[in-house]
Amino acid sequence: MIIISTIHEMQAYVQVARKSGASIGLVPTMGYLHTGHGALMERAKNDNQRVIVSIFVNPLQFGPNEDLDRYPRDLPGDERFCSERGVDVVFAPTVTEMYGADGALTRIHVATLGEHLCGAASPGHFDGVATVVAKLFHIIQPERAYFGQKDFQQLSIVRRMVGDLSIPVDIVAVDTVREADGLAKSSRNAYLTPEQRKLAPRLREALLRLQAAWSRGERDVPAMLAEERAQLEAVPEFRVDYLTCVDSDRLQPVNTPAPGQSVVFALAVFLGKTRLIDNLIVQ
Amino acid sequence: MIIISTIHEMQAYVQVARKSGASIGLVPTMGYLHTGHGALMERAKNDNQRVIVSIFVNPLQFGPNEDLDRYPRDLPGDERFCSERGVDVVFAPTVTEMYGADGALTRIHVATLGEHLCGAASPGHFDGVATVVAKLFHIIQPERAYFGQKDFQQLSIVRRMVGDLSIPVDIVAVDTVREADGLAKSSRNAYLTPEQRKLAPRLREALLRLQAAWSRGERDVPAMLAEERAQLEAVPEFRVDYLTCVDSDRLQPVNTPAPGQSVVFALAVFLGKTRLIDNLIVQ
Repeated sequence: MIIISTIHEMQAYVQVARKSGASIGLVPTMGYLHTGHGALMERAKNDNQRVIVSIFVNPLQFGPNEDLDRYPRDLPGDERFCSERGVDVVFAPTVTEMYGADGALTRIHVATLGEHLCGAASPGHFDGVATVVAKLFHIIQPERAYFGQKDFQQLSIVRRMVGDLSIPVDIVAVDTVREADGLAKSSRNAYLTPEQRKLAPRLREALLRLQAAWSRGERDVPAMLAEERAQLEAVPEFRVDYLTCVDSDRLQPVNTPAPGQSVVFALAVFLGKTRLIDNLIVQ
Repeated sequence: MIIISTIHEMQAYVQVARKSGASIGLVPTMGYLHTGHGALMERAKNDNQRVIVSIFVNPLQFGPNEDLDRYPRDLPGDERFCSERGVDVVFAPTVTEMYGADGALTRIHVATLGEHLCGAASPGHFDGVATVVAKLFHIIQPERAYFGQKDFQQLSIVRRMVGDLSIPVDIVAVDTVREADGLAKSSRNAYLTPEQRKLAPRLREALLRLQAAWSRGERDVPAMLAEERAQLEAVPEFRVDYLTCVDSDRLQPVNTPAPGQSVVFALAVFLGKTRLIDNLIVQ
């Protein structure tokens, strides 16, 4: 496995790989890798002749009061993790390498999709995501790029950007990987106290109850959401940021679903200072 | 010469060309081609094995009160023009083909560079330019793309975007082509009345006097600009939008130039409803 830290070296590697006709799969990450990322790598390995994992804690997607400095990092551990999974290249540039000493002036904005849910509390967050993802696509020119279904809003925004700008890459969504008790894997789980960790599976349980109600034919979405929100808010350690039902295309709130409409139940809940997200698509 | 109107066909052509190892030069235009565009094509022809000219009047870069519908179009004439110059492909998509039936949600914004000069009166204009240029780069994946020095702010913004986002393309600037009397070639010259056409070379003459003053060692930029502005404003048919001196990198106004600094004298002047621009770089 090769570790590359400069854009120039990464481009040189890609040029050789492309000339040899090898297909490239990219797994963009912010590091502190867990088996959720592992599932993305496995899928990329299966689909492509070369797998590149980028590890970059992207300052553009953190707000001024957010946890950029506090975000967990473990590059040596991440490199071992990638190596054990047969990754060909880890691309781990510095912030200066990515954005220059004076910072980048360019931002990519996807209207509508990023303005609520996880974007409501963090204006500019998804602009930062879209911008860094486009830059990685330009540097690495992958045939395919892999994103977890857990961050479904991010996935929708990246898909829309790729379509709108005709970026030549296939976006592959991979199912959320979970702990045995159903908690979605996340680097942020490392922040949880043992007590919070014990309560965390209730987020998924709320989504499963919504799915079950939906399967029984219930369609009074506001009432369904209100009931589950009340249940979550009854737990003193929880602070619900959002619990909502949106259409899976434009991510707009759905109150009275059309027959056959596919929707996403999604939530973000604070446990202390740690904000966890999860979602469930229902057809 | 091939005429292509869909993104899919254009991508298929590019894939074959790239597999054969042919280098591609792109000349992005809004059509109504003149010898200024011809110079870009000639340069592209010289540097690349395939030359692609895109012809697309991009609605994203027109404001609600601007001349989108009035913008001159002549696709048959443009095709002849390209064919005579040995262009390999004309890519002329419709608006729906480029942005879909429901329009594109994605925009690229380059901060600072687009907010004054030609951007001051047209908020969003350069976002529209950056967005369409990036999309064309993704579809056509050229080794090199050719832009006229006449639109130096557009050139600076495209260069900055390409650098910030690591888009794998070389941006080539080509000198402004002029009429015998010095007027910069522009599709908008077609709007001028005979009387306006006779007065139009005075724009270039103002820039040349500024250059001459600079060469003589004059550095009181505000006084130099004020004098030329007064001269232009003495012509009743002229309405000066801006006449300014900016640094050639960040396009910020320069009042007291540093020794050895390279600056751009630039202007935009309305002749009736027609807005003409020109510029001159001095070292």
